[in-house]
Amino acid sequence: MNKEISSKLINKIRENKPLIHNITNIVVANFTANGLLALGAKPVMASAPEEVAEMTKAANALVLNMGTLNREHLKAMINSGKAANEKGIPVVVDPVGVGATQFRTESAQQLLREVKVNFIRGNAAEIANLIGQAWEIRGVETGKSGGNIIDLARFAAQKLQATVIVTGKEDTITDGATTFLVRNGHPLLTKVTGTGCLLSAVIGAFASVGGVSLQAAVAALTTYGIAAEIAAAKTAELGPGSFQIEFINQLALISPTQIEQNSQFERL
Amino acid sequence: MNKEISSKLINKIRENKPLIHNITNIVVANFTANGLLALGAKPVMASAPEEVAEMTKAANALVLNMGTLNREHLKAMINSGKAANEKGIPVVVDPVGVGATQFRTESAQQLLREVKVNFIRGNAAEIANLIGQAWEIRGVETGKSGGNIIDLARFAAQKLQATVIVTGKEDTITDGATTFLVRNGHPLLTKVTGTGCLLSAVIGAFASVGGVSLQAAVAALTTYGIAAEIAAAKTAELGPGSFQIEFINQLALISPTQIEQNSQFERL
Amino acid sequence: MNKEISSKLINKIRENKPLIHNITNIVVANFTANGLLALGAKPVMASAPEEVAEMTKAANALVLNMGTLNREHLKAMINSGKAANEKGIPVVVDPVGVGATQFRTESAQQLLREVKVNFIRGNAAEIANLIGQAWEIRGVETGKSGGNIIDLARFAAQKLQATVIVTGKEDTITDGATTFLVRNGHPLLTKVTGTGCLLSAVIGAFASVGGVSLQAAVAALTTYGIAAEIAAAKTAELGPGSFQIEFINQLALISPTQIEQNSQFERL
Repeated sequence: MNKEISSKLINKIRENKPLIHNITNIVVANFTANGLLALGAKPVMASAPEEVAEMTKAANALVLNMGTLNREHLKAMINSGKAANEKGIPVVVDPVGVGATQFRTESAQQLLREVKVNFIRGNAAEIANLIGQAWEIRGVETGKSGGNIIDLARFAAQKLQATVIVTGKEDTITDGATTFLVRNGHPLLTKVTGTGCLLSAVIGAFASVGGVSLQAAVAALTTYGIAAEIAAAKTAELGPGSFQIEFINQLALISPTQIEQNSQFERL
Repeated sequence: MNKEISSKLINKIRENKPLIHNITNIVVANFTANGLLALGAKPVMASAPEEVAEMTKAANALVLNMGTLNREHLKAMINSGKAANEKGIPVVVDPVGVGATQFRTESAQQLLREVKVNFIRGNAAEIANLIGQAWEIRGVETGKSGGNIIDLARFAAQKLQATVIVTGKEDTITDGATTFLVRNGHPLLTKVTGTGCLLSAVIGAFASVGGVSLQAAVAALTTYGIAAEIAAAKTAELGPGSFQIEFINQLALISPTQIEQNSQFERL
Repeated sequence: MNKEISSKLINKIRENKPLIHNITNIVVANFTANGLLALGAKPVMASAPEEVAEMTKAANALVLNMGTLNREHLKAMINSGKAANEKGIPVVVDPVGVGATQFRTESAQQLLREVKVNFIRGNAAEIANLIGQAWEIRGVETGKSGGNIIDLARFAAQKLQATVIVTGKEDTITDGATTFLVRNGHPLLTKVTGTGCLLSAVIGAFASVGGVSLQAAVAALTTYGIAAEIAAAKTAELGPGSFQIEFINQLALISPTQIEQNSQFERL
């Protein structure tokens, strides 16, 4: 993979304005929609079980986020996921807080059984819990562990037959065979709610124009991380409120050249 | 209509602080509440079918937004709408994404059958779909069409017996007999989620002090558009995050003089 | 109580990063999460009745907000509250809009019967309605009254067996026996939606590290009010959008010294 792929994909998002159908939670819905708009994509947030399949059929990618999951939303996610599979558009799952409660863990497992999922993005604890490995989790935040995250990601990708993205200090992206590490990003992202959720939606946007591929995920993560780095450089002394706003600005302003010059990734 | 009507109405909102009851969606609820507060109105967001009628009875206008509609919300909207009709306060409907799914289209039609609606604000595709005309729609975003928007708006207003506001590059406001065009606004509004939804709520605020009239809608749209123009002039180079914040600022700061001097509307 | 308690508690929040479980409403969920993150705490927002008890068991405080209450959320609040009582973590209730509808009033009363609540924060009208006193309420906003707020707060604390915090121009904090007045804060807080709701969550954060005590509540209110004062000094001419962002910044930046030097409270 070369760095021009990322800049080609961001241009394609801005030209094509792909429609990204999100079934997401009350905490991050607004931030996700504004982030996707800034990037150049179009968000839609329908979540009623009666209509989601029809909405998904009009979309270019589907992003399922389990942040404030309930039974109605789970039903909607399964309906939408099946519609996405029929249409052949990319499906991203963000298993927020899986492992924190039995309901979340079982719901995630049911979703993965009934829907063919292309990308799963979470922190190490969420991914571990998804495949039944013990890993400390606290609320929807990751715990610490001595485990080897790259091994975890590869094993999860093989078991779940999906591209797995484990985000943290550095990000691991793997389909089980090929693995990339991405080193872009900034710690201020952890001080703003929904930055992981929006990243999952951004992966959906890149996949909608770049196909189900490791490259699309690497492009999404480097672009996102670089936007955060630029925003942090401008606002780090001001605080997380200002960073959040500047990060949305940078998702709109980031140029293909900035992406090519600042991408930090490595194929293992 | 003269330009002083708008400035009189904004003063009246700031003095009376009308209570605007919104049944709205998870994406825009926060932005809508902050926009109404900035303008000088008071928002309330109750949506449980058990309580909405009672809440509406305490309000000065009702705004029904179909953004993340579900069956419970539809029931609540009908209960609230009937209470608003009994009390005689203005009812605004924002038929977000109507035409995108059968559920939305049928729900909107049911709502319009059971509730007397005074204002309907949407893009051209939503308004067309509401009256059963084919018009390309993509998610909750408008498609393009060669159709004549003014004719569409007039026909819809006559058929739906309501004041119809079709927003786009320029905005059409008509009760089927008299028609105004408003030319205020800024393209950056399309880069922030919920700006159409907040506009519908602002129409409710102006109607709560100005009555069910074309004038109230024209005043709402010019005020809103001018606030966007001022905000864009201050932030266009910074990005949509900064614009969103500055737009809220300007809804609070905009003066009657600014409104009178910058209003761009025409009676056809 | 001396001023160093507040600065000790803010340090403890930043070190321990307590997990605050919020069952809250669609309007303020994002702002609440970002405010808690800025302060140094960790938010979690699960609200499905099936999982909330398990999530609460992992948390350090529980905050129940009735802003957009429905039957499912009420069930979840009761489940969570019982789990919090079993575990012995602080429970904060924010009875948003109680008195505005029968459903809210009855739901709040049921919640207080079934759950042992440690802190109740509301405006004067909400607190009055909670104990069956007539007090003008308009939507979720407080009305005016000639009533004596300090007497109201004391009587409510005795009747409800909880620490009652009545916020307004000055804030009253009482367990029925001992009473504090806090005079920090800024009127711009009333121009941003959810500032009362976030304050309730911040009381939860302070109580999670400072125990169920008047001191924890006083520390929360002075810290919050001082952050608002600093933010207002920086943004008052810009408008409520800028204030909202700067307030989040200041929750992250506020130093123990600033808190000690600017606390304005009095024991009656």
